[in-house]
Amino acid sequence: MNFRLEKDLLGEDEIPESAYYGINAKRAEANFNINDKKVNINLIYAIVTIKKAAAIAHKKLKELPNKKADAIIKACDEILEGNLENEFITNFLQGGAGTSTNMNVNEVIANRAIELLGGEKGDYSIVRPIEDVNMSQSTNDVYPTALRIASIKLLRPLADALSKLQESLQIKEDKFSDIITLGRTELMDALPMMVGQQFGAYAKAISRDRWRIYKVEERLREINLGGTAMGTGLNASEKYIFTVTDVIQDLTGLGLSRSDYMMDVTQNMDVFVEVSGLLKSAAVNLMKISNDLRLLASGPNGGFGEYKLQEVQAGSSIMPGKVNPVICEMTAQVSMRVIANDTAITLAASQGQLQLNAFSPLICESLLESLELLTNAVRIFEDKCISSINVNEEKCKKNLESSTSVVTALVHHIGYKKASEIAQKSIKENKTIKEILISENILPREIIEEILNPYEITKPGIPGVKN
Amino acid sequence: MNFRLEKDLLGEDEIPESAYYGINAKRAEANFNINDKKVNINLIYAIVTIKKAAAIAHKKLKELPNKKADAIIKACDEILEGNLENEFITNFLQGGAGTSTNMNVNEVIANRAIELLGGEKGDYSIVRPIEDVNMSQSTNDVYPTALRIASIKLLRPLADALSKLQESLQIKEDKFSDIITLGRTELMDALPMMVGQQFGAYAKAISRDRWRIYKVEERLREINLGGTAMGTGLNASEKYIFTVTDVIQDLTGLGLSRSDYMMDVTQNMDVFVEVSGLLKSAAVNLMKISNDLRLLASGPNGGFGEYKLQEVQAGSSIMPGKVNPVICEMTAQVSMRVIANDTAITLAASQGQLQLNAFSPLICESLLESLELLTNAVRIFEDKCISSINVNEEKCKKNLESSTSVVTALVHHIGYKKASEIAQKSIKENKTIKEILISENILPREIIEEILNPYEITKPGIPGVKN
Amino acid sequence: MNFRLEKDLLGEDEIPESAYYGINAKRAEANFNINDKKVNINLIYAIVTIKKAAAIAHKKLKELPNKKADAIIKACDEILEGNLENEFITNFLQGGAGTSTNMNVNEVIANRAIELLGGEKGDYSIVRPIEDVNMSQSTNDVYPTALRIASIKLLRPLADALSKLQESLQIKEDKFSDIITLGRTELMDALPMMVGQQFGAYAKAISRDRWRIYKVEERLREINLGGTAMGTGLNASEKYIFTVTDVIQDLTGLGLSRSDYMMDVTQNMDVFVEVSGLLKSAAVNLMKISNDLRLLASGPNGGFGEYKLQEVQAGSSIMPGKVNPVICEMTAQVSMRVIANDTAITLAASQGQLQLNAFSPLICESLLESLELLTNAVRIFEDKCISSINVNEEKCKKNLESSTSVVTALVHHIGYKKASEIAQKSIKENKTIKEILISENILPREIIEEILNPYEITKPGIPGVKN
Amino acid sequence: MNFRLEKDLLGEDEIPESAYYGINAKRAEANFNINDKKVNINLIYAIVTIKKAAAIAHKKLKELPNKKADAIIKACDEILEGNLENEFITNFLQGGAGTSTNMNVNEVIANRAIELLGGEKGDYSIVRPIEDVNMSQSTNDVYPTALRIASIKLLRPLADALSKLQESLQIKEDKFSDIITLGRTELMDALPMMVGQQFGAYAKAISRDRWRIYKVEERLREINLGGTAMGTGLNASEKYIFTVTDVIQDLTGLGLSRSDYMMDVTQNMDVFVEVSGLLKSAAVNLMKISNDLRLLASGPNGGFGEYKLQEVQAGSSIMPGKVNPVICEMTAQVSMRVIANDTAITLAASQGQLQLNAFSPLICESLLESLELLTNAVRIFEDKCISSINVNEEKCKKNLESSTSVVTALVHHIGYKKASEIAQKSIKENKTIKEILISENILPREIIEEILNPYEITKPGIPGVKN
Repeated sequence: MNFRLEKDLLGEDEIPESAYYGINAKRAEANFNINDKKVNINLIYAIVTIKKAAAIAHKKLKELPNKKADAIIKACDEILEGNLENEFITNFLQGGAGTSTNMNVNEVIANRAIELLGGEKGDYSIVRPIEDVNMSQSTNDVYPTALRIASIKLLRPLADALSKLQESLQIKEDKFSDIITLGRTELMDALPMMVGQQFGAYAKAISRDRWRIYKVEERLREINLGGTAMGTGLNASEKYIFTVTDVIQDLTGLGLSRSDYMMDVTQNMDVFVEVSGLLKSAAVNLMKISNDLRLLASGPNGGFGEYKLQEVQAGSSIMPGKVNPVICEMTAQVSMRVIANDTAITLAASQGQLQLNAFSPLICESLLESLELLTNAVRIFEDKCISSINVNEEKCKKNLESSTSVVTALVHHIGYKKASEIAQKSIKENKTIKEILISENILPREIIEEILNPYEITKPGIPGVKN
Repeated sequence: MNFRLEKDLLGEDEIPESAYYGINAKRAEANFNINDKKVNINLIYAIVTIKKAAAIAHKKLKELPNKKADAIIKACDEILEGNLENEFITNFLQGGAGTSTNMNVNEVIANRAIELLGGEKGDYSIVRPIEDVNMSQSTNDVYPTALRIASIKLLRPLADALSKLQESLQIKEDKFSDIITLGRTELMDALPMMVGQQFGAYAKAISRDRWRIYKVEERLREINLGGTAMGTGLNASEKYIFTVTDVIQDLTGLGLSRSDYMMDVTQNMDVFVEVSGLLKSAAVNLMKISNDLRLLASGPNGGFGEYKLQEVQAGSSIMPGKVNPVICEMTAQVSMRVIANDTAITLAASQGQLQLNAFSPLICESLLESLELLTNAVRIFEDKCISSINVNEEKCKKNLESSTSVVTALVHHIGYKKASEIAQKSIKENKTIKEILISENILPREIIEEILNPYEITKPGIPGVKN
Repeated sequence: MNFRLEKDLLGEDEIPESAYYGINAKRAEANFNINDKKVNINLIYAIVTIKKAAAIAHKKLKELPNKKADAIIKACDEILEGNLENEFITNFLQGGAGTSTNMNVNEVIANRAIELLGGEKGDYSIVRPIEDVNMSQSTNDVYPTALRIASIKLLRPLADALSKLQESLQIKEDKFSDIITLGRTELMDALPMMVGQQFGAYAKAISRDRWRIYKVEERLREINLGGTAMGTGLNASEKYIFTVTDVIQDLTGLGLSRSDYMMDVTQNMDVFVEVSGLLKSAAVNLMKISNDLRLLASGPNGGFGEYKLQEVQAGSSIMPGKVNPVICEMTAQVSMRVIANDTAITLAASQGQLQLNAFSPLICESLLESLELLTNAVRIFEDKCISSINVNEEKCKKNLESSTSVVTALVHHIGYKKASEIAQKSIKENKTIKEILISENILPREIIEEILNPYEITKPGIPGVKN
Repeated sequence: MNFRLEKDLLGEDEIPESAYYGINAKRAEANFNINDKKVNINLIYAIVTIKKAAAIAHKKLKELPNKKADAIIKACDEILEGNLENEFITNFLQGGAGTSTNMNVNEVIANRAIELLGGEKGDYSIVRPIEDVNMSQSTNDVYPTALRIASIKLLRPLADALSKLQESLQIKEDKFSDIITLGRTELMDALPMMVGQQFGAYAKAISRDRWRIYKVEERLREINLGGTAMGTGLNASEKYIFTVTDVIQDLTGLGLSRSDYMMDVTQNMDVFVEVSGLLKSAAVNLMKISNDLRLLASGPNGGFGEYKLQEVQAGSSIMPGKVNPVICEMTAQVSMRVIANDTAITLAASQGQLQLNAFSPLICESLLESLELLTNAVRIFEDKCISSINVNEEKCKKNLESSTSVVTALVHHIGYKKASEIAQKSIKENKTIKEILISENILPREIIEEILNPYEITKPGIPGVKN
């Protein structure tokens, strides 16, 4: 392998001749060599978009020569098309508040721009990574802005996936609206209800998640690009600050605007805690739903057996014919991972000091991972579980009828205590409520029929009473 | 001690004659006797308010005799005035999704109402805890509604406290707007800034918290009162459902409205995860601010020593004259407790099953504790720390001048690499940047003066360049 | 109310004449007035025991006059008998690393000792809170030592409670060893097993918890008493350091010994993270067991219905006769609270700085709460749930027989794929495995009987093969 | 691309002809396609080792023909040498309790064995993935055993890395044993101490971590291999169960032994919570140490500036010459990630149900990631930070001398209150303690010299008193 020499404040080092990254990336690769996970590519692309915006702004303001600016812009476009992905070599967890990631991007763009201008990689007299590519920028404004861009870009498909899931649940609400079943509170037989009602309750919960995800975007749109090192804007011209905000907004179409207090955006990470907290709310709903489905589909013979989930793979390497609720289990695990990522985000965000938060890489990687996992899990959950779910009506009916769930309808007529005694008796003697009422002559038969109609019990009102 | 006998489905038990609580509360007290912490009183009061609303509604609809309803209403009023607090004896953590708390309230109200009607405690032929006080209700609609009422009632003073804190920070932003100091990123000397700018950044973060706390209330206003056991409304007349919602709204003035999907409100707890997540965002900001203040006030001689915090108590039982930043330390610990409570809330909310969440007492106690602690901590933090904070201007200036923070202003003029060398040299040879620039004849003296003016460096723009 | 005047470095303040606490406690009460929860009494008693030990040591070494030392010792004894509990007025969360708690204790002891010597409270010329009661001590050695003492004292009953729980589970293992039932993996019907086997698995898990709780005590026994402010031992005579360690060991009988590196014990909190982590392991086992029991007892008719839990209270204010698994639900909530407390402990422990951890009060309160809750929950869980649990043999048998669980026994004989087809067919056509095997003539009837004997399937080995 | 057809209970599907994985892996890849992260390779290797052990055992017991067993063993060896890594295609988070991972391994081994026997991939008449490779096994015994093997293999290098770190800290303890400096409690100037003492305290904390990591291995050594599906051992011959345990112990040399209660190991995950809790203890110590170092190296001019950390890379893309404590920041972030992984592990472990924990893949991936990250972070932290750390003696001395830290030495001589006044005066009037003592004639000069000698103050004892 051939090498070129590059230099930084620590001295010279060899860089592979074919590499687009430079000495800063190489130092960082060695310093943070803790596993094989690299920086989330969505963040890289957001940073490259910012570099492009800066070059466009500088070109417009004649702060960079046209030729140089064009080469930088072209290099950015090539990367955004998916080239050079392997040149981003720094670890997902890194010290330096993202400086190494920013440096890595600066170097890759500079070297590709140098090539485009006919030079050889490493000849930074043609395009300089810092003075040209990073002109008027600091990691401290580039990184938080990029994290906002990447977050919004990943929030939107999540909102869409949740929307699709909500619709799918509502289709089931409708489809199962006439199937009567047994409701349970604290896992104990409670009251009759319609299967569709339960899907409606799930849909309602997911609709809140969707709404929250949609609304939180607003707070992410305020960016500190132009604030440079601490948010004070040193070394960025005022014209540039205004222009680059317009350009990045044009390039992304995400509704970005300049924060009215850049120093705040530079140092405070509470917005990411807020976003992660909302992802956690969605995770909690997904855990609840997927756990319920596993329970209602349990058995199928030796369990609740009321729901039938789509079979998506063989379930056991030893038990033939066994099929497990693996999509639900995957969804629950993604939810738990989202909750765990929230721990990381909260911890890191709480540890900011003075004018910067040194731990933003952990925030970034945890948040973007949560967004990706959640979006894909919701899609698969909808596609391979909810949309194809079925109900075993017979089992629903059997479970309902075996229970004493109709006894609550008697309270108005015979009082809580008497009704309690009948319920206990029913379980102990294995008789139905109706049988006991009749055999003990507690209420007239026609009133019993009216009161104990389980379909009536699924609606508001006092059975046997006009209201 | 004298006793009366009461009976439930397990048999008879002795209740102290003087007790307003009854057999259900007594069973629960024994079952959940895990420490001496009782149910949060704010929840009790919210439940009592619901009982009052139900009695008013039933009276209006003639579902309860006037005399009985009036006695119940009067009993509720007495409790809300602070009487009988010791009669609520169930533990803060309890099985049963809050049933024991609801039963306890029913019993206390019933027994007080019995007394008001001239009867003796325990004579439930006069007022029945379940059929009368709990009429048309279930723990499963009362408890989530009460938790929403209690939460909103505690959120409002928190919003006010945050608002006051924000103002106080803005006063300091203004007051310290002319004091120049050294900014640090990753704790390393970075750029000059004004002390006031930092307080402005704090104020901005707190303003977001305030706004979030204010907005989240909306989602809490949807209640399931009238949904009874599973949200289907069994045993509540339709008239009652509409009336009681109006009455509870009148009694509380909190903007409550009937959920359009009560079964959802009964079983899903994501809203509390959302609220807790926002409290966590506030906690993160408070940790950041209080940690910063401790750091900037550290020493005072052997540390940063730039800020002076109000002395509120002696700091050491061994080191005379030592005063510690105890208000900041308390604030940080409250923040951590809020984060820990969020863990509990998330866990419990994720564990709901089918038509109910059995773990809502843990959600309730964790959330209400967080709200109380946070509100009071914010108030004290504002009152005993922020409002009286002072700056040691001399120390700020000394720290700034000893640093190489002005070197960034040179990048435009001499390039990043050359500026790096000068910065390194300054630290190694213990000379100022200006001294090196002059002694090495790098730039003309008048340009140096213009570029290195630290006051200019605190604003946007490229020093030494018209923009 | 009458007052006396006391003075500290902030000036004078009024103290109620009847109060044993002094000005330091009063300042702290106002500074940390965030809710009504006071310092855990177990910590107070541990601190008082240390004060007593110090007085005994000083008396022996003639560093305190006999009369004064005796009065201090007597005052300590009175407090340890349960008197003066209301005099400990500082909040559970407080700044100052516990200094206020220590000061509060110093003051109460001093004032009671003054009384015992015939003086009036507040006349500190007789006994001085700092120079006499706190002699040779600092909060920074007293507090960590006290937390260790309180922790060990609470760990022992927890170990005992776990031991009792393990025994109770083993009794059930034995009692249910002949009852065959259906095992489920991922909630899906799997293989036959004995009910007793499951209780054995629970007992095994609890035995690990017991062992861990027992072993971790070792690390808590190293104390830094005598290290004073930073662990360097300033202002404590070497004789005192040795003597006081012996005395505290004698007083407590807990196996305490002097750390060989006191500065470490003063500043590092990892031992409490370790202890809390082990409590979390126990919590995880308790959640698993209690959740399993709720599931297996669910219904009872419309659910698994295999286990019968003791009825301990009425379950619903609306549904007559409903009984819920409230002891399991309480146990699970305590487990979640323990997990949440671990979050607080981890956060606080990670935030120590330099020679002290300012957040030890949060560690202390969270850990002691976890210990108390867990111990009592385990006791109640054993007493009101495990010891009285029963099995519905009929339901176990029915669930087992309705399942295809015996199909795995065929793999050796007909292969995994063929066995899969039979299992799927069984579920779809609602026939038993045996029926299909016979009707399709797949294996001879006598071999079928041998292979599909569910009792054989609960043991190691290949059915139908000698091994 | 050419394809072969494979079949499972869902029907036929196309598998690339070149693929060693089969239809089960392909189904799983599609079902769990949530991001691009695959199963941790350490787990894969542990499973392959188990497959090899099973084949050896079966060969020995003549339960598999020699030729077939040898081919399986050879295939395993090839994989363990690093071949075929890309054939393990299932996602890191997956439903099914690891079944897909196990199936994937079975398929790859089978297909490679088929090739070795001269067949073509997919011709399962030669070697069957389930009946041959998975013979006498279930995912439910293979997976927990493999996770134990992988954990122990990763724990050992972590223990070594901690050991090296401890040594390195002790070298610094020694090296800096004569450098006096200022200690701080709650960030406020406290007492004089030696720089070496602090490194000793760090070394002590790390020694505990090392010991814990070393001891916890014991609990991981109990395996359930041979327990098959639920721990009952169905379809595994007793001879096999004994033999395979011996073989796996021989192959790994890790001290593995057969659990005396396999059903427990199959379903309970508390041991991984325990291990993760100990990793969290280490993380807490690493956060404390790295945060301290950042603080003590802060500035260097406008901060504490007492320690000098090795420069490992340029720190800023805008501020020339700035160097940041990036190794410490990386270490802290790894620590936070470990804490977040603990959340995931705790959650997943608490959610086991009945005879299995469906969420073990989340436990596995979180734990192995924590182990890898921590080991590498500790190594880098030692190598690039601790081993090269230096002290700015002058700054230490200056900070010490500017403080009032010696005042505590006066308490014995002039009382706490008087000493407090002098300390306060010293700060307010900017005079040293000695100056005040002399000018106010409080103590004779020679006694002052003796008492206030900061070197004496770093040791136990009362200054100015023989003890």
